[in-house]
This record gives sequence, structure tokens and C-alpha cells, in this order.
Amino acid sequence: MKTEDRLKQQLEFILEIDKMKKILRQTILTDYSRQENDAEHSWHISVMAMVLAEYADQSVDIGRVIRMTLVHDLIEIYAGDTFAYDTLGNQDKKAREDAAADRLFAMLPTDQGMEIRMLWKEFDQMETPDAIFAAALDRLQPLLHNFVTEGHTWKRGVTSEQVRKRMAVIEKANPKLYEVVNGIIEQSLEKGYLTE
Amino acid sequence: MKTEDRLKQQLEFILEIDKMKKILRQTILTDYSRQENDAEHSWHISVMAMVLAEYADQSVDIGRVIRMTLVHDLIEIYAGDTFAYDTLGNQDKKAREDAAADRLFAMLPTDQGMEIRMLWKEFDQMETPDAIFAAALDRLQPLLHNFVTEGHTWKRGVTSEQVRKRMAVIEKANPKLYEVVNGIIEQSLEKGYLTE
Repeated sequence: MKTEDRLKQQLEFILEIDKMKKILRQTILTDYSRQENDAEHSWHISVMAMVLAEYADQSVDIGRVIRMTLVHDLIEIYAGDTFAYDTLGNQDKKAREDAAADRLFAMLPTDQGMEIRMLWKEFDQMETPDAIFAAALDRLQPLLHNFVTEGHTWKRGVTSEQVRKRMAVIEKANPKLYEVVNGIIEQSLEKGYLTE
Repeated sequence: MKTEDRLKQQLEFILEIDKMKKILRQTILTDYSRQENDAEHSWHISVMAMVLAEYADQSVDIGRVIRMTLVHDLIEIYAGDTFAYDTLGNQDKKAREDAAADRLFAMLPTDQGMEIRMLWKEFDQMETPDAIFAAALDRLQPLLHNFVTEGHTWKRGVTSEQVRKRMAVIEKANPKLYEVVNGIIEQSLEKGYLTE
């Protein structure tokens, strides 16, 4: 392949991912004004990776974590955002996301498409130290937003048990960060943002 | 300082920077629907750093470039976005941005606030290879958006000479990327998106 074709593919991909700015999440901004989108969320947790790097295990490569957080939701351009506490939507999530990945990453030169797809897969499987830390940030950010917006997305019937289950990866990532999570869950129960 | 205080400062900073999602830029989304915000733009050029890494000079550290693109606009939370082609607004830009940096980075533990401030300063000065590549991405993304939205922000009287001046850093960063810029400027003149 000529470099020119390669660059053309890359530029088309860059324009395509502008669509991330239109994929709305359940989380709202801290000023309550509107739902957050995937591009904003991905930026936010990438900066969090920089700021909270010192809480990562020594084996974690923060540069790789950031590349992971930047691309971890790209497939939602075609698969859409699935609310973490939506049991039904999570049943066919995998099939929808794999099909979306096939379509999206094929836009890039093969080597690059594979590289980003593998980063996404690694994130999704939450097994490596990098993926565990990245996933912890991905869970921590909406928890913080939910807390400061008085349980906005929790109030539709999410229980503290469901939140604890979802936050378990933060315990794996770092005990200090998990202490924060625990404190937030306790206070949210007291304030009625969450039900038992 | 106890780690607990340190973490508290970091979490407060993380919540504060949610405001990046409300700082509107002149650039619009490729579907014409609305203005882009700083969080989205920062995410977009950070992914571009990953995808276009092969066009960077060998001396460029892409990991550092990404950290730079993630934080390069943070001070706009207090200083606001200054339109690149606004001569008047650019006169007091430096003073406004320095004051904003004083305020924002003081929220973080001193070592971390300094580190991020230095990354921002380095970006702003466009002298190191990392900063030149980061600035090139920062210029290329709105150029692409302007081209596919028929010169949306250019149509208020921006000339091709002004655009060429602003894109000069892309020529420094990489000749192949600058070829793309040149092609876009030529075509934009033909189509009337830009005036001579």
C-alpha cells in the first residue's frame, strides 16, 4: 500500500470518530446541565490516568493505560452505549460490540486497526494490570459524577450491591482508591442516593 | 502532607475539570449539529496522536505528546477559548491564560500542578519536537473539520494567508501532513470556503 492511501485511510478514520461526540452516556455533567458523551468521558478518564498514576501498581504502564482509555469506547459509535445496570441490554452487548469493532477498525490500515482492537479487547477483559487500572478509572469517574449529582443515574432503582459489584475492579486496582469508593457508597446510602 | 489530603486534592481537581465540557470552541462537529467543546477536541487530537504517530520525527515521544494534548487547553476553564483568528482577543491571551494557570494548577499537589503546568507551557511555546507535533495535531483537527463543514469558521472572513500562517507548525512537524494541509487549502480556495 502506498503511504498516500495509508494516510487517506487514517484521515477518514479520524473524521469518522467525530461521531463519539454524539454517543450519549447515562452520566450527567456535574452541573446537571446535560448527559455526557463518549468523547468527553474518554478524555476525562485519560486525564485521571495522569493525575492518579501514583495509585497504580508498579507493573502498570500509564502510557498504555492512557492509550486504552482513549479508545476503550470507540466501538460504541456503532454499538451504542449500554447502561452498566441494564441487564437486558448487556445480554447481547458482546455480539453488538464485536460487529461494531469489525466495521470500525477495518477503516484503518490493517496493522493499526489490529493494534487498537487489541487494546480495546484487553481493556474489556480486565485481566492485565493495565486493563485493571484503566477499568478502575472508567468506573470511578461516573461514580464521582453520580455522587455530586445526588445519585442521578442511580435513582432509577440501582442498589448499593449492584454498584459494589461494578466497582470491584477498583479494589483490585488500588486499596486507597477503593476506600474512596466505599466512603462514597456509604454516604450515598445515608443520603438516599442509593438503595440497599 | 498526608496521602489522604493529596488524594482529596486530586479528586477535587478531577471534578473541577469537568468544566472543560462546557468550554465551546469555534469549530463545529462534522455533522454541523453544534460547536465542539474543549474536552471533545482534546480527546480527538489525543487519538490523532496515536493514529498519526508514524509521521512524527524519531525524536518525538508520543506518550508525552498525548499527555500534552490531553492538558493543553485546561486553562481555558478560566481563560475561555480564544478564536485563533481573533487579533484583539489574542492580545491579552497570555495574561489571561497565566492567571488561569495559577488558579487551576494550584488545586493539585504542588509537584503535580507544576508538572502539568510545564507540559502546557512547553506545548504553548512550540519549540521542542514533542510540542511541535502536539501543536500540529491541534491545528490539523480544526482544519479537517473546517474543510468537511464547507469552511464553517473561515467564512467570517479568514484568508488563506492567515490559515497558512497558523498551519506553519505542521510543515515543521512533517512534510507529508503538510501536503494534506496544502491540498485542503487549495481546494478550499477553489470551493470558496476561504478567500485569498
